[in-house]
Amino acid sequence: MQDALLALTKYWTDRGCMMVQPFNTEVGAGTLNPATVLRVLGPEPWRVAYVEPSVRPDDARYGQNPNRLQTHTQFQVILKPDPGNPQELYLGSLKALGIDVEANDVRFVEDNWASPALGAWGLGWEVWLNGLEITQFTYFQQAGGMTLDPVSVEITYGMERIMMALQGVDHFKDIAYAPGISYGEAFGQAEYEMSRYYLDDADVETNRRLFEDYAAEAERQLEQRLPVPAHYYVLKCSHTFNVLDARGAVSTTERAKAFGRMRGLARRVAKLWAERREELGHPLGLAEAPAAVALPATLPTTDKPATLLFEIGTEELPAAEVAKTAEAVRQSITTRLGGTRLEHGEVRAYATPRRVVITVDAVAPREADAEKTVKGPRASAAFDADGNPTKAAQGFARGQGIDPSELRKIDVNGVEHVGVIKTEIGRTAVEVLSEQLAQVVGELRADKNMRWNDPKLSFTRPVRWLVALLGDVEVPVVVSALASGRETRVHRTAASPTVRVPSADGYLDFLAQQGIVADPVARREQIVAAAAELAASVNGVVEGEDALLEEITNLVERPNALLGSFEERYLELPPEILTTVMRKHQRYLPVRAADGSLRPKFVAVANGDCDPDVVRAGNEAVLRARYEDAAFFWRADLQVSPQDMKAGLDKLAFEERLGSMADRAKRIAGIALALGAELSTEDSEALARAAELAKFDLASQMVVELTSLAGVMAREYALRAGESPAVAKALFEMELPRTAGGALPTTVPGAVLSLADRLDLLVGLFGVGANPTGSSDPFGLRRAALGAIGVLRGVPALREVKLGAALELAAEQFRAQGVDIPEQALTDAREFVLRRYELHLIDAGNPHQFVGAVLPLADSPAAADRSLAELTRRAGDASFGELVAALQRVRRIVPAGTAPSLDSEHLKEPAERAVLDALGDARDALPAEAPLSVFVDVAEVLTAPINTFFDDVMVMADDPDVRAARLGLLASISDFAGRQLDWQALGTELTPNR
Amino acid sequence: MQDALLALTKYWTDRGCMMVQPFNTEVGAGTLNPATVLRVLGPEPWRVAYVEPSVRPDDARYGQNPNRLQTHTQFQVILKPDPGNPQELYLGSLKALGIDVEANDVRFVEDNWASPALGAWGLGWEVWLNGLEITQFTYFQQAGGMTLDPVSVEITYGMERIMMALQGVDHFKDIAYAPGISYGEAFGQAEYEMSRYYLDDADVETNRRLFEDYAAEAERQLEQRLPVPAHYYVLKCSHTFNVLDARGAVSTTERAKAFGRMRGLARRVAKLWAERREELGHPLGLAEAPAAVALPATLPTTDKPATLLFEIGTEELPAAEVAKTAEAVRQSITTRLGGTRLEHGEVRAYATPRRVVITVDAVAPREADAEKTVKGPRASAAFDADGNPTKAAQGFARGQGIDPSELRKIDVNGVEHVGVIKTEIGRTAVEVLSEQLAQVVGELRADKNMRWNDPKLSFTRPVRWLVALLGDVEVPVVVSALASGRETRVHRTAASPTVRVPSADGYLDFLAQQGIVADPVARREQIVAAAAELAASVNGVVEGEDALLEEITNLVERPNALLGSFEERYLELPPEILTTVMRKHQRYLPVRAADGSLRPKFVAVANGDCDPDVVRAGNEAVLRARYEDAAFFWRADLQVSPQDMKAGLDKLAFEERLGSMADRAKRIAGIALALGAELSTEDSEALARAAELAKFDLASQMVVELTSLAGVMAREYALRAGESPAVAKALFEMELPRTAGGALPTTVPGAVLSLADRLDLLVGLFGVGANPTGSSDPFGLRRAALGAIGVLRGVPALREVKLGAALELAAEQFRAQGVDIPEQALTDAREFVLRRYELHLIDAGNPHQFVGAVLPLADSPAAADRSLAELTRRAGDASFGELVAALQRVRRIVPAGTAPSLDSEHLKEPAERAVLDALGDARDALPAEAPLSVFVDVAEVLTAPINTFFDDVMVMADDPDVRAARLGLLASISDFAGRQLDWQALGTELTPNR
Repeated sequence: MQDALLALTKYWTDRGCMMVQPFNTEVGAGTLNPATVLRVLGPEPWRVAYVEPSVRPDDARYGQNPNRLQTHTQFQVILKPDPGNPQELYLGSLKALGIDVEANDVRFVEDNWASPALGAWGLGWEVWLNGLEITQFTYFQQAGGMTLDPVSVEITYGMERIMMALQGVDHFKDIAYAPGISYGEAFGQAEYEMSRYYLDDADVETNRRLFEDYAAEAERQLEQRLPVPAHYYVLKCSHTFNVLDARGAVSTTERAKAFGRMRGLARRVAKLWAERREELGHPLGLAEAPAAVALPATLPTTDKPATLLFEIGTEELPAAEVAKTAEAVRQSITTRLGGTRLEHGEVRAYATPRRVVITVDAVAPREADAEKTVKGPRASAAFDADGNPTKAAQGFARGQGIDPSELRKIDVNGVEHVGVIKTEIGRTAVEVLSEQLAQVVGELRADKNMRWNDPKLSFTRPVRWLVALLGDVEVPVVVSALASGRETRVHRTAASPTVRVPSADGYLDFLAQQGIVADPVARREQIVAAAAELAASVNGVVEGEDALLEEITNLVERPNALLGSFEERYLELPPEILTTVMRKHQRYLPVRAADGSLRPKFVAVANGDCDPDVVRAGNEAVLRARYEDAAFFWRADLQVSPQDMKAGLDKLAFEERLGSMADRAKRIAGIALALGAELSTEDSEALARAAELAKFDLASQMVVELTSLAGVMAREYALRAGESPAVAKALFEMELPRTAGGALPTTVPGAVLSLADRLDLLVGLFGVGANPTGSSDPFGLRRAALGAIGVLRGVPALREVKLGAALELAAEQFRAQGVDIPEQALTDAREFVLRRYELHLIDAGNPHQFVGAVLPLADSPAAADRSLAELTRRAGDASFGELVAALQRVRRIVPAGTAPSLDSEHLKEPAERAVLDALGDARDALPAEAPLSVFVDVAEVLTAPINTFFDDVMVMADDPDVRAARLGLLASISDFAGRQLDWQALGTELTPNR
Repeated sequence: MQDALLALTKYWTDRGCMMVQPFNTEVGAGTLNPATVLRVLGPEPWRVAYVEPSVRPDDARYGQNPNRLQTHTQFQVILKPDPGNPQELYLGSLKALGIDVEANDVRFVEDNWASPALGAWGLGWEVWLNGLEITQFTYFQQAGGMTLDPVSVEITYGMERIMMALQGVDHFKDIAYAPGISYGEAFGQAEYEMSRYYLDDADVETNRRLFEDYAAEAERQLEQRLPVPAHYYVLKCSHTFNVLDARGAVSTTERAKAFGRMRGLARRVAKLWAERREELGHPLGLAEAPAAVALPATLPTTDKPATLLFEIGTEELPAAEVAKTAEAVRQSITTRLGGTRLEHGEVRAYATPRRVVITVDAVAPREADAEKTVKGPRASAAFDADGNPTKAAQGFARGQGIDPSELRKIDVNGVEHVGVIKTEIGRTAVEVLSEQLAQVVGELRADKNMRWNDPKLSFTRPVRWLVALLGDVEVPVVVSALASGRETRVHRTAASPTVRVPSADGYLDFLAQQGIVADPVARREQIVAAAAELAASVNGVVEGEDALLEEITNLVERPNALLGSFEERYLELPPEILTTVMRKHQRYLPVRAADGSLRPKFVAVANGDCDPDVVRAGNEAVLRARYEDAAFFWRADLQVSPQDMKAGLDKLAFEERLGSMADRAKRIAGIALALGAELSTEDSEALARAAELAKFDLASQMVVELTSLAGVMAREYALRAGESPAVAKALFEMELPRTAGGALPTTVPGAVLSLADRLDLLVGLFGVGANPTGSSDPFGLRRAALGAIGVLRGVPALREVKLGAALELAAEQFRAQGVDIPEQALTDAREFVLRRYELHLIDAGNPHQFVGAVLPLADSPAAADRSLAELTRRAGDASFGELVAALQRVRRIVPAGTAPSLDSEHLKEPAERAVLDALGDARDALPAEAPLSVFVDVAEVLTAPINTFFDDVMVMADDPDVRAARLGLLASISDFAGRQLDWQALGTELTPNR
């Protein structure tokens, strides 16, 4: 391993990097060394390479985990400015390490980096070596809250991983570190002891005090305008925070506060450093950007329609951007050409991770000429009485460069003006394309954009080359420092990585000869076919992986599918674990048997030619390591009963004022049991047991590692511990829904626990005033609210649960733990949930009026849903519309606070009696708790009498008794109808614009 | 510079060293990295090389000083066990750095290393490159209070110095660090800012708190048996202490306390580490020591007297050990041969730093045979009446293997025994020498001894080879793993560093041919002659440098004197500065003009052949750098007036409870003025002014750097600031005496200030209970006591000053500053001083009795001195002896507490009258304050009357009045004499054994 470090040092110092030493205070990553985090700021050039032992207390595993260490070794390179070919330089460094980049599958897979604590972010990749992440490669865009100009290329090698892959060992301790000394022999004891310190023995109070002292000292040094010592103390803060975190001593609130403080300090350090460098006159000089290129003075011409080829060559685009970019470029070119008079045939777009290829058929050699009318003065002012041009007309003609006699009369909106009609000569195709294509490149944008060494361009990844050919004629396209040519780039490991393109025609075939499948449709077909064939060879199938196939298609330029295996013994693990790792981490296609069960196989898709055995072996090793990790956790977790595991929740912080995760689980159980009692479910036994075990898997090693498996692991561990399937399912379902619109619980115990979980979160956080703000929702209260709503709406057995009452149940649990929940907090929490519900309904396309009308019912969202559905159904119904109008009319005239009454003594008029009778009939006919549909059917008898009443009777009669009786009658109607809806909210348009 | 670091890394990793990273918390030296300080413990082998940016806050200079940085770069190598040739490996590394070790003068100059804070020490050298210290080379003997077995070789390169020398630049900022980037460009800002932090802006309270927190955390981790995290916190403690120290926030007491604490922690860490490694089963295995060599089964013989050559080859001995070792070996061989019957001629010894050469003339080929008498039973018991041997005789004969008839009669102390006379055959010379010389090597010892890779040997530096020849016959000498041969080693840069020695005869000439002058007398003569010649060539002389010449002689094997120059402008500096630097730091001989003034020249003495221009230039550059430093301080200090400088004493801590150095200076001034007032000196004006400025130079940059120049700089700066010569001299003299027996002040103001200084120290420290203990005297109170005594005894004007009164004056000054000084503390301080005085007198050879007799006078040591001298003079004088006897007789008979009286009424007897009269006469004749000499002359009249009195008179008369009168008379005599001496202490022998 030390040879590898020396080889990298030599490689990069030979390429102009300065070598510096690791920083002499603990850092979590090489990025934090001032040689990166400060030097990337400002305009000075900087090239540096160094080793950085990176300390991450949270990764401490006593040296037992084969892949995870509290201190791992980074090799860090900064190239500032971007030299224009950093990927190629990087590949050279792999060769220097002895890696055969032709035999191995080396890939640049999207991985963006952001450190809010540093006010820093960048775009780039993780570099894969046969599926193993060996390097972070980032174009650093911002640091300390400041935009970087120039940007820096940051390359971070994970040395232990690289060495394990190169040496083919399965545990970091077995790495040959130096001749005769293994990594474990050299560093094993420190790994164990520092793990002990970080996980078990660091004194929490002392570290808290250190954090405060460090932060204060950083402040003081900033006040003294000394960024260097201030930075030291920010790093010490950061490390101390990490120690506290590893000790489980940081609540969510404390975390947010500490991050805020560190972020603020880091930003001030960065700003001050930049200022100080400027005051010092930028001792290292100013980095120079590549000069803008000039367009040739004369452009070539063509003489017959020809195919346009336009290729935008990039570094590896994020998979999700490949198709989007191709389509955006296609549209842009189509639109832009539409704005010219250049005739052309179909515009087609293709794309790989490294190129967007546009072809346009039959581009005319030049634009048609065109006529253009220029308006002059009104005709009446253009000629004097003698018909001679006035001064105005003379001036206009002079301005247009013509003789006044050449002026014509033209009609402008019915007014006669003089004017001139000019002929515009069409430009050549090359002229038009040169201009338009340059604009296309200049306007490229993606969801996240970055800068590189180009002084002006910005895109999701660097644009490195352009090919523009019209037939076989080069179209000069110049954007900033980038100029088109006829050289394209193929695989970096090809014998000639750069090739000359003979002609626009047949370009896809030409690329195919170079081993590049530019058409994504074809690539995907190849992958699907190859995967199917490989799977079939082991009696398996690859099914239902559309999203993954789409991603894989956009990760390669030429798919090279390989069948890999893993040991059968890993099949003991729940399939969710196996597929989660395969898909999310490795982009491998799982292979299943006919019955849907997993086979110990996977299909990996490499890029281009490489040694299949080497690549397969590499990928298998990566998967093995990941599965070994998972199996390690699995086995370890199975040693612990759910009850015992649950005891571990004590050590997991939840929120400072709301206790530990154990406290939270206890409250959830309490809420769930209370809710369950009201529901008198038949599953009460399962519910009781599940409530007892609620959240136990959060203390499992597996979930600590792979949080997305919470619930899944609860189910698996519970089953294996002998719990009933109903209990296991309830524990699984309590984590549902996982996303807005995700699957809901299907059992009552699961649903009750899910609701209880979310109620606890909402009441607790509102209770301590941690309401979400516009941009900040650290506890995910919005998601919790939507989840609660989802359960209340979607799980039939819970449809009668009332939100307000349920929140009150949750509050009681807090109070039982001695946490005061103010009433206002409950009101706020309820309002917050209802507001989420309202927004959800509107986002789903429901008319505002309908949503407004049913909201008063939303304490039971299921009821509101039903009414909303009925409203929607009745929206175009005329008689319903009349009923609504009648009821609104009633509601409008009744002053607020009027008591309902049925004073038959004073209601003698026939119209009055008719209403009175109809109301009585309707009341009699309406069952208790009737839904809106029934109500409407029943209430329609009121429409006509109400209308007649208003036609015939003066409500505001002079006789106060009569007036009161009439208002009382109307109030009775309003009261009768008002339990169903907010009728006024429906407005006057019953088929509103959606 | 980065190339150099890489070259060293490659060189050492090629030689089996593991490469590790600098430690990720601040360390003051590479030694503190656990890769050294922990790995040197225990039996496991370990070879490591690493870079270590070493942080020394105290060396912070804002980046302005050309040679001093708060962070400098060490390159550290540990070889465990000692590979046997570490010096040769080291020289190879210099070649790898591109240093021509033949052209340059590379030397190993004694420099031992000890870190009480780490419980660590080692012996070794600083390596000089043309006079520049570029490396520390240490055989690590102890760490964490534990003896190291095996020992480690520690090599620490000072990279900035090496690079400055290699690149020929004068300021660290100008080092080319990487292509196109200078050291200053890369690290200048950090150097400045961290200097600011350490010197000005570090928050003292925060760092104090950090120190406590770190220490406590180290304790806790020790309790958890985790030495690695504990060590981290010890290092953090240490760095924080250094920060506080650089901020001037550590008093002497605090320093001692902090060091004690850190030392305790470091020892516990080391002990625990060693235990843990043992528990882990010593994962790196056990280091193997070279096997002991066996003596050949048969030894060669010689047939005629021959010369013995015995050479003990070592690594460079400390200069002071060279001659001592040679003499010790010569005596040992002489003694040992004297214990054999091997005849031989003269034993001669020669020595260089790398060898002791012994020649013995005419060693006989074998020992003479010898007769040995064995005593048997007494003759009377050996034969029966018949003259036949008894059983006893028979048994004896059988035991001796002879026939009873062979028994002879022998005389044993006048008693006749039977016995036998046996002949012992002499051993061969080779046999004798082989045995005796091995013993000599095994018993080699120096003041400080070390171990290396030999399993048994121990000496001041490693013994690496032995040559033993008798004539041209090899004498096998085997000690532990070392075996003699006939190969010697010459200059390491010679074409053949190892040569075969043909014969013992003419060995000095043989060595001379190899460029080695083994005879120190010859070497010294060569140096003196060469220095004289070189000095003469520039009209100069080298004079009065005996001690330095002695040292230089023992630093080289072949002197190669060179004349170097320095710029004349440095002559503006006081010559003490220039010569201090030349002698102490560089071992250069100063060259003076005829008038004694310095010439801008020096003589350096290189070792063996080298390129004189290269070596001269190197030495000149070193001196230039040192003088530049000094000149920098000089100029900076001259910008500040003495008054302003004195204000800086506020910031210098003295002792926590006794205030700052400014407080101390103020007290000293107060004491001095009070003493001066009593003396009513004529120099009161100078004294007043000097008291005002007392100690001001302690705040000068020069004295902060070169503390031994305190006083010297005060004089120089005072003169240049326009103070009178008397004031300047007083300020200089107040620092005298610098050592026990050193020069004393010659002026009254100087002496008064000197005394005041020491009184302040004594009273203050005793006042706060910081009495020196057996092993600990951090404030140098013993030296202070001796200094005070020295001044009181040696400066005539102060002879009448009474110690007790003077201490009281000092106490008053403390009380004026609010510091309470208990009376007991004053008593203790006085006792402490008197005890020093007593011991000093005894060490100087004065008889105990005399010292005891004069001690009661020692409140005025000068008076005691005078009496002691008189006692010594009179020691053999018979009449004095009689007087003493008479006075002692008087003193013995008078009970304690008897009041003197002269009751002539009851003293009627002639013998009584005679005494009465004699006493009266003597009293009349004795002047007040008469010295002992006068007293004796006067008092001798008492001898005879007293003796007669005791002969004639019964003191204890029955008549109580008479008895009282007689006792009163004797008490009067006792009183009269008692003011002079403690006569009883003189005992009964007036010429005591000395």
